[in-house]
Amino acid sequence: QFWFEFASTYSYLSAMRIETVATDAGVAVEWHPFLLGPIFAAQGWDTSPFNIYPAKGRYMFRDMSRRCADLNLPFQHPDPFPQNSLLAARLALVADAHGKLAAFCRAVYSAEFGQGRDISAPQVLQDCLRAAELAPNLIDQAGQPQIKAALRHQTERAQALDLFGAPSFIVGTELFWGDDQLETALRYAT
Amino acid sequence: QFWFEFASTYSYLSAMRIETVATDAGVAVEWHPFLLGPIFAAQGWDTSPFNIYPAKGRYMFRDMSRRCADLNLPFQHPDPFPQNSLLAARLALVADAHGKLAAFCRAVYSAEFGQGRDISAPQVLQDCLRAAELAPNLIDQAGQPQIKAALRHQTERAQALDLFGAPSFIVGTELFWGDDQLETALRYAT
Repeated sequence: QFWFEFASTYSYLSAMRIETVATDAGVAVEWHPFLLGPIFAAQGWDTSPFNIYPAKGRYMFRDMSRRCADLNLPFQHPDPFPQNSLLAARLALVADAHGKLAAFCRAVYSAEFGQGRDISAPQVLQDCLRAAELAPNLIDQAGQPQIKAALRHQTERAQALDLFGAPSFIVGTELFWGDDQLETALRYAT
Repeated sequence: QFWFEFASTYSYLSAMRIETVATDAGVAVEWHPFLLGPIFAAQGWDTSPFNIYPAKGRYMFRDMSRRCADLNLPFQHPDPFPQNSLLAARLALVADAHGKLAAFCRAVYSAEFGQGRDISAPQVLQDCLRAAELAPNLIDQAGQPQIKAALRHQTERAQALDLFGAPSFIVGTELFWGDDQLETALRYAT
């Protein structure tokens, strides 16, 4: 299980490489979008810890630049940071119902961190639907009550799993946090 | 440069393995003890973030158990956590003046995380001095004004370097944070 939040920088790294490394390891991946906002709010944070703790934020952006260069991934500083990821996360569940969850998620991450686009903008998300070979008018389904409820349920599951950040990987009962633990998680899965 | 705090769990991993992996990479290591307490206090924390954010703390202890098992290192949950590391850090600077910094630091980490001993206890630190082939009565020098000033200076340097956690590695102007970034830091150093 790959648990991710669209606003999360390090989730971008995992989203772009997980299918390749998991396939090499012979491991199947379940993609799980969720929102970190309610989890951060429960511990008293009203924004990203990278904003609350500036030294950590400066390090993260430098570290992301280095890691993206190593992976040959483009990297743009999102403006604003963090992005409002609510609509993208709801739409991911719509894409899931159409069998295109991973492709849509990669399109969102590419738009946000590869091209520096604002993923709260409906037009950007419609481009992401197209990139995932989905109809752009599916965006109208993001506001449906069952989609809203499904995302709330995902975030409650994340809290029940004791997740505190993203990306997180679950293998059986074991939790692994952070893109650099992806390989360790895959080792536990095989 | 290897910057570490004796109370830091992940610094234990790096302290026990850095000389081996750095030697393999042909890199020389400078050991830099410092205190995280003043850095955490400046951002409003009065204890370890692993205590302030319990889910993160539960994860860290499970993750440490897994990593120590992988590295064939013993791991005991320190009581209390975090340990008061002031005396150990001052004594590390005394050990440094006698050419035994790394050996003394490994002895402290082994006592704390390998054996579960309290590293604020003078008797435990005297055993660490002995393990580093130093005279146990060197403990009397830990309170000297120049040693106290030297540790304050180390912590000020850490703040000037924008460090926010431990272990941290500095290669030129590049900062790397966390035991799992040790190999990346060594790659930048070669």
